[in-house]
Amino acid sequence: MPHYNLSLLGFGNVGQALACLLMGKQEELKVRYNITFAITAIATGRHGSAFNPDGLDIEKGLAAIQAGESLNELSATSPPSDTIEFIRACGADVLFENTPVSYTDGQPAIDHLRTALENGMHAITANKGPVVHGYQGLKALAEEKGRKFYFESAVMDGAPIFSVFRETLPAANIKSFKGILNSTTNLILSRMEAGESFDQAVAYAQSKGITETDPSGDVDGWDAAVKVCALATVLMGTPIKPDMVARTGIREVSPEKITQATAAGKRWKLMCSAYKEGDTVIAKVVPEMVGAETPFYSIDGTTSIVEFETDVLGKLSIIETDPSPDTTAYGLLADFVNAVR
Amino acid sequence: MPHYNLSLLGFGNVGQALACLLMGKQEELKVRYNITFAITAIATGRHGSAFNPDGLDIEKGLAAIQAGESLNELSATSPPSDTIEFIRACGADVLFENTPVSYTDGQPAIDHLRTALENGMHAITANKGPVVHGYQGLKALAEEKGRKFYFESAVMDGAPIFSVFRETLPAANIKSFKGILNSTTNLILSRMEAGESFDQAVAYAQSKGITETDPSGDVDGWDAAVKVCALATVLMGTPIKPDMVARTGIREVSPEKITQATAAGKRWKLMCSAYKEGDTVIAKVVPEMVGAETPFYSIDGTTSIVEFETDVLGKLSIIETDPSPDTTAYGLLADFVNAVR
Repeated sequence: MPHYNLSLLGFGNVGQALACLLMGKQEELKVRYNITFAITAIATGRHGSAFNPDGLDIEKGLAAIQAGESLNELSATSPPSDTIEFIRACGADVLFENTPVSYTDGQPAIDHLRTALENGMHAITANKGPVVHGYQGLKALAEEKGRKFYFESAVMDGAPIFSVFRETLPAANIKSFKGILNSTTNLILSRMEAGESFDQAVAYAQSKGITETDPSGDVDGWDAAVKVCALATVLMGTPIKPDMVARTGIREVSPEKITQATAAGKRWKLMCSAYKEGDTVIAKVVPEMVGAETPFYSIDGTTSIVEFETDVLGKLSIIETDPSPDTTAYGLLADFVNAVR
Repeated sequence: MPHYNLSLLGFGNVGQALACLLMGKQEELKVRYNITFAITAIATGRHGSAFNPDGLDIEKGLAAIQAGESLNELSATSPPSDTIEFIRACGADVLFENTPVSYTDGQPAIDHLRTALENGMHAITANKGPVVHGYQGLKALAEEKGRKFYFESAVMDGAPIFSVFRETLPAANIKSFKGILNSTTNLILSRMEAGESFDQAVAYAQSKGITETDPSGDVDGWDAAVKVCALATVLMGTPIKPDMVARTGIREVSPEKITQATAAGKRWKLMCSAYKEGDTVIAKVVPEMVGAETPFYSIDGTTSIVEFETDVLGKLSIIETDPSPDTTAYGLLADFVNAVR
């Protein structure tokens, strides 16, 4: 029975949810997929790090983090404090990279993932940055090393998007896609329909930990644009960067506009879209009014949707309802199992 | 480069669309998947059959069928007229089974698929009958023979449903699902909303070849019930038969009811659903009014949708818009590539 040592880089909401899910699915993975594993390394930004080649005590680790304590005391040996050195030294078979996203250059996640692959690990991330800024290089390196670079949770959390095209739709070529990919703006627009001001809705999203203290990455459409780039780069074979996406955020969607839309039986949505034109992809992120005759109308709160037009199927849409860190964690677990089974 | 001989059982709309698609994708399958193939056998119900171990001339075959002629003249040798003998003698690596569906016992498709597997072929079908009535036996036989029994197009045509759970969602367990799975009734209800009577809408569906001369398999919910059984059997590991599905068709949905629903901002849909209860699955097919707050409201005409609730994701929905025989054919092609790659 193949056994895998797992290393977790980043142990925030998603990393902790992943650890819990892995523990909860341990027996099922053994029985159904003949896979056993141990989490042997965890590195955090502010709570220390821990190594144990025999497997860390995850319950103790979760308790330490929740008590605001360091992971250092769990460690059998003293891990390197430098992250790249940590990855080189961790001796794992799989690295889960969950450090904060960089929209502009995908670093330091790209270096983390590259180091993992160079050291013979599968490299798995929920991070959009390295997909947009490092996909070709990381994919080529993974192939050279006979390992996988997977990132299902980078777009629409754990909903299967990249893996659907990779594993289930051979010889399908995407002509265009359209979707609602940013949960925060969709939640804000939904709450504004219920009567909140923009500021109130932003404050609500912040209170739920759904957007940052500075919400501009969401409300100005950067997060959505990065996701569009990730989809175009991986699924349409056309690398585009966020500054190539015609981008308008939701600040212009006033309460008056929302009231008018509601009266007309429509809803404002931050629509993402892209289509192939020759060798390039034309992409945009822009608020649009949608009617109930489209599935976009029903996408409420943090739910998301993407609709693909291919050369072989009618339009194919995937909706993920109410995601959470658990959902993102599942995408990471699925990447792990799909990488090794 | 692996080469596959393909045998087509049934050469109606779907079989012909499959032959066209295979020809159109021949170069792409070679370049992207290192797969070459030849269609070496075709058997039809009323237009003869043909064998050629070097590959049949498909353009001639399509022309013959469209001219109402027999395929016999394409044949290098004289194939057996008995279908089981035909399968045994065809010497193919893959059998595509596309004979008419039997809701009650899945025959003769089950025997065709079993014979294919026993003779070392991958067995692929768009036929719901053998999935509902023969899944366990055919799957076990396929595993014993090291071959695949795939049937992506049995539900929602070529949209990836079975393959999504098989290939992309490891350790995901379905608690329930809900969907609109019968295109004909959804088209009829959509046209009744536009003012047609039930009989007019049925006649329209018949004129488009979407339903049979006797439309009861669709309008009384049998087709939907069989699809529910296929999903429950394969994806929930709980074999149920159509007579175990609480089934109400759309005959009770009067023009008056539709007018009332429209006035209330709702639509009637033939909703399929199933949920796990202990070791069994409770399933029903029944007309329901749905509101625009659900994605079901936007499902118009022949479009279909299924929404899964699992233990690892928020609700995950898949929508297929406006399918055609080409879409069904793509599901068969995808099954072929996924079986051999």
